[in-house]
Amino acid sequence: MARPVRWAGSVLPTDAAAVALRPLRAEDVSITGGFWAERLRVNREHTIPHGFDQLDRAGNLHDLRLAAGATGSYRALGLMFGAPFPFLDSDVYKWLEAAGWELGREGSAELERQADIAIDLIARAQRPDGYLNSFVQVLAPAQAYVDLRWGHELYCIGHLIQAAIAWKRALGDDRLLEVAVRAAESLERALGPEGRNAIDGHPEIEMALVELYRTTGDRRHLETAAVFLERRGHGLLGSDRFGAAYWQDHATVRAAPTVAGHAVRQLYLDCGAIDVATELGDTELLEAVHRRWRNMVATRTYLTGGLGSRHRDESFGDPYELPPDQAYAESCAAIASVMLAWRLLLATGDPSCADVIERTMLNGILPAIGRTGTSFFYVNPLQRRTVPAAADAGAGERQAWYPCACCPPNLMRTLSSWEQLLATTDARGIQIQQYAEADVRADVPWGEVRLAMTTGYPWTGRVTIDIVAAPTEPWTLTLRRPAWAREAEVAWPGGGPGDGPGRDGSSRTSIWRPGDCVVLELDMEPRIILPDARIDAIRGCVALERGPLVYCVETADLPPGAMLEEFRLEPAVVPVPDPRPELLDGAVGLSVSATRRPLDDHAWPYEETSPDLSLQSPVETEEIRAIPYLAWANRGPGAMRVWIPRDGGAV
Amino acid sequence: MARPVRWAGSVLPTDAAAVALRPLRAEDVSITGGFWAERLRVNREHTIPHGFDQLDRAGNLHDLRLAAGATGSYRALGLMFGAPFPFLDSDVYKWLEAAGWELGREGSAELERQADIAIDLIARAQRPDGYLNSFVQVLAPAQAYVDLRWGHELYCIGHLIQAAIAWKRALGDDRLLEVAVRAAESLERALGPEGRNAIDGHPEIEMALVELYRTTGDRRHLETAAVFLERRGHGLLGSDRFGAAYWQDHATVRAAPTVAGHAVRQLYLDCGAIDVATELGDTELLEAVHRRWRNMVATRTYLTGGLGSRHRDESFGDPYELPPDQAYAESCAAIASVMLAWRLLLATGDPSCADVIERTMLNGILPAIGRTGTSFFYVNPLQRRTVPAAADAGAGERQAWYPCACCPPNLMRTLSSWEQLLATTDARGIQIQQYAEADVRADVPWGEVRLAMTTGYPWTGRVTIDIVAAPTEPWTLTLRRPAWAREAEVAWPGGGPGDGPGRDGSSRTSIWRPGDCVVLELDMEPRIILPDARIDAIRGCVALERGPLVYCVETADLPPGAMLEEFRLEPAVVPVPDPRPELLDGAVGLSVSATRRPLDDHAWPYEETSPDLSLQSPVETEEIRAIPYLAWANRGPGAMRVWIPRDGGAV
Repeated sequence: MARPVRWAGSVLPTDAAAVALRPLRAEDVSITGGFWAERLRVNREHTIPHGFDQLDRAGNLHDLRLAAGATGSYRALGLMFGAPFPFLDSDVYKWLEAAGWELGREGSAELERQADIAIDLIARAQRPDGYLNSFVQVLAPAQAYVDLRWGHELYCIGHLIQAAIAWKRALGDDRLLEVAVRAAESLERALGPEGRNAIDGHPEIEMALVELYRTTGDRRHLETAAVFLERRGHGLLGSDRFGAAYWQDHATVRAAPTVAGHAVRQLYLDCGAIDVATELGDTELLEAVHRRWRNMVATRTYLTGGLGSRHRDESFGDPYELPPDQAYAESCAAIASVMLAWRLLLATGDPSCADVIERTMLNGILPAIGRTGTSFFYVNPLQRRTVPAAADAGAGERQAWYPCACCPPNLMRTLSSWEQLLATTDARGIQIQQYAEADVRADVPWGEVRLAMTTGYPWTGRVTIDIVAAPTEPWTLTLRRPAWAREAEVAWPGGGPGDGPGRDGSSRTSIWRPGDCVVLELDMEPRIILPDARIDAIRGCVALERGPLVYCVETADLPPGAMLEEFRLEPAVVPVPDPRPELLDGAVGLSVSATRRPLDDHAWPYEETSPDLSLQSPVETEEIRAIPYLAWANRGPGAMRVWIPRDGGAV
Repeated sequence: MARPVRWAGSVLPTDAAAVALRPLRAEDVSITGGFWAERLRVNREHTIPHGFDQLDRAGNLHDLRLAAGATGSYRALGLMFGAPFPFLDSDVYKWLEAAGWELGREGSAELERQADIAIDLIARAQRPDGYLNSFVQVLAPAQAYVDLRWGHELYCIGHLIQAAIAWKRALGDDRLLEVAVRAAESLERALGPEGRNAIDGHPEIEMALVELYRTTGDRRHLETAAVFLERRGHGLLGSDRFGAAYWQDHATVRAAPTVAGHAVRQLYLDCGAIDVATELGDTELLEAVHRRWRNMVATRTYLTGGLGSRHRDESFGDPYELPPDQAYAESCAAIASVMLAWRLLLATGDPSCADVIERTMLNGILPAIGRTGTSFFYVNPLQRRTVPAAADAGAGERQAWYPCACCPPNLMRTLSSWEQLLATTDARGIQIQQYAEADVRADVPWGEVRLAMTTGYPWTGRVTIDIVAAPTEPWTLTLRRPAWAREAEVAWPGGGPGDGPGRDGSSRTSIWRPGDCVVLELDMEPRIILPDARIDAIRGCVALERGPLVYCVETADLPPGAMLEEFRLEPAVVPVPDPRPELLDGAVGLSVSATRRPLDDHAWPYEETSPDLSLQSPVETEEIRAIPYLAWANRGPGAMRVWIPRDGGAV
């Protein structure tokens, strides 16, 4: 197998693209230890091998074998409208994308063997005309590009392209890329700028085609992506069950003022829109996405970064409709949010994008993966009640796999490419966007920079950056100052202040020398968080945060026999760090003094106010322990809350 | 057409049944004016004719014609698993049940003509072996009683039986009854005590078979109902998509401690369980249902009486999971709750059952019907946000009909038989269970009683009961004292106190004479209601009630440009009655002083507490107007809230 080529990364704007920041090459960042090294190790050693087994068991590989000519029945764990799910190939592609980034980082005979099986199957399954979709080829061979609403054919090809690009960029391996280009050409003949006026019900192809253009230089792919964007919002998909907004066909990509409909569809669409906008220098389109994104962050985002409130149609709800218990907050939506924020960060330099990436990676994505790396949440609620045994079987725990298994391999590829998001460059220098123990290499205009970052982040707030190599001209080092940090002090070499604005990152322009050392100290005092008054579902509650992490309380940490519903927090309470190494290496929990009120049972749960009626039961004070939300649901069934009712005032 | 027979009513326990109270005959209660007369008039003159038109348009009658031998394609507005809905016949039956009660009350040539069309079609559609289900007969004729999970065949026959009983009891018309008996015998041959060990995925047949037994005296029907109950809870239906609790197959009817799964399924099942329990004197079974019901009222009931929180599977949620905005609160579940509470009231005499009937009829069922009687809610939320135009098309307004149209004809039959719930008798006398302008005739052991009730209820709290005729022996008149009434004073003839316990109804045993007059005065002071602290979704909110009615605030009553989210209520505020005849004849709204806080927009909707940070914006005080929830959503799109955030304390 070829070794990595000179350039890598899943999002690589061309030199002509209108972007504020540029990504590093994937091979220029190595996670060297600490919190993230362990997450990536589990992903590589446990999650990805588990994924291959599951794809084999669930029938995804079997179905590709059928498309390649084997005989048998199409298999799926789930049904949609009485037929097998039509998007099963995409899970194989997402898994392959993860495998590509991993092999680019370090070889593995077993992973190569598994990936070769999948790649070989995919190549053999492709029709001579380039068409590739096992569902259609096996079950409805004459129906290529017919069921665009629900068929997910372009969505699948999009994931094929993204996998192919990982293999090309990380490994210089062209096998998947050749398949992907033929598949792209097939769909472009049918549906491209001169083809049928149609779009896919699930966006994804748009960003994939832009990246394919960036990889091959074939502008046809960019033009097709652009035309798919322009066709959307004119009712081509109709309304079907959930209304036209479900697949963002209710308003044009340029005009839609807010995110709407199916969360993953909206976010993937906006990823593609940014990619097209940057390559075409289309500032109107970029600003439309940025405006929607700001509104989404302000009105439709969970504290964890999770997105998409509604179970029924996996959709964003109304503004401020953010129920913690019935949160949908699909793992894939959090992943899509990071994909979108990364593209927006590159395109605009808006530092709040990096804040969203951090919050979402730690609190929206990592909690979806169980401690052993082989179980996953599809849905990520911020509250779980103590559920009577039979009422809701299986809904409360992570599962090894799902009939619709979009999330697990999406989590795999996200972790496998996470270090690509660590830093950016511009004409002035380097911006450290995320904090982790890592070696970083980057090109600034006057030469090569090498940095070594050491930190106990996210458990401690100190980040030390050692300059290992630097050119002899001045360049700017920028450290993101997270919005959550009340205080962020930087000790620059030789003392003195930085020269960048506080909120927009602390930065200093200097001639840096090997041996220079910068120390960032972020305020890790625990914080009590209040929600906007319009978030009805968590009115009268507070949450706990420390550093970049959201905390929660689980039954497992309560006194025996206590119910989570009995505890309340005074907003003025001061939580204290509480080491919890048994949960996770280095983990820091919080200990906090809570009021405990026994619960009275009423025959009717609504009572009239009156001077002599008080719903306040007698109160005791107890110390309770909160844990990082990313470690929740690893200790068996039980209740959990991120938002704890406030004591004092409303009960 | 024959005139009403001597006995009537949809629930008529046999003389041998173990019941505490007995229903009156339907023809012994006439609504003579006021609030309910107008509701019943709209139902008769507008809703029921609209229903026939819609059944005709939607294809329900067409499909029965196909089953009767006509040619054409099976029609349905909706699909389930890619096939037409299989339960469309039931809507015709529910409509016919409504028509039967209406014609029993008063003739109508047009309604008779429409009903004759439907009855004739049904009779012709029935197979010679008694089997009757247009879906199976047209689309899968060899599949009778095969798809018991989703096929709804027994559910449909249950509604056929209930319609047939209305026609028999109200009109002495046997046409439908003959069809129903043959259909019942068909299913009993296949699935009865000696038939296959199977049950229907949607309970309904159980209560219908008991009532058929009560009508025909054929004990076979009672035995079949009993065996269906005993078979449930042993996993015969399997888990399918939503788990075994979805169709109450996770635990036996005797053992299940709480309601669970699909709300209408659970409530219909428990109706059948009470019917069987009372006819067999099975106190264990009765107590199981009563226990479940008390737990449901205490932990899973909306302030409006609505039931079933979750959209995804139309299910009860966890205890205290009662979101106002994402409330499902299906109209059919409120109807089923009244059906269940009525049966429990008869079986046990528990007066809280009559309270639930009152609350649910006025606040859970009537709001599902639009002002003109020709539009309906399927889902009845307690909060509607101001929805951006395109985001959720159609979800916010009542519809003329639904692809799954279970609710509209269910509302029709509920209103057509409502007066049957007005009063009950026992060996001691008469209990007035609901207050309305009505003439009531009843038999007490020593002769006939006639009463005339006059009242402006629910707008006023005074109820006057004139004794028109009475036997010369003493008997007991009992007036329900609603749990909501802080004060309930009764002026008995000749003064002096009653002899019944206050909470369980005010009653007096006396030799009553024509001309005697009893006046009940219920305290109609508006009330501020607080929720149990465990109902997370409405923490820190209050609601307004007056008399038996729940109130809400709509955008239409706010100052121009104001947003509902800006207003809060002090719990000590005193609302003032506010006549609103433009909404509904005699309607009384409430006027209340609210604090108004301008809303600040934040880039991120969560903020850290700190000594100098206050989320309290400057405050003004404004008078706002609340309307009865039963009149909401009749003035165009806009926001609505039943639960208003409290001011003071938590914001």
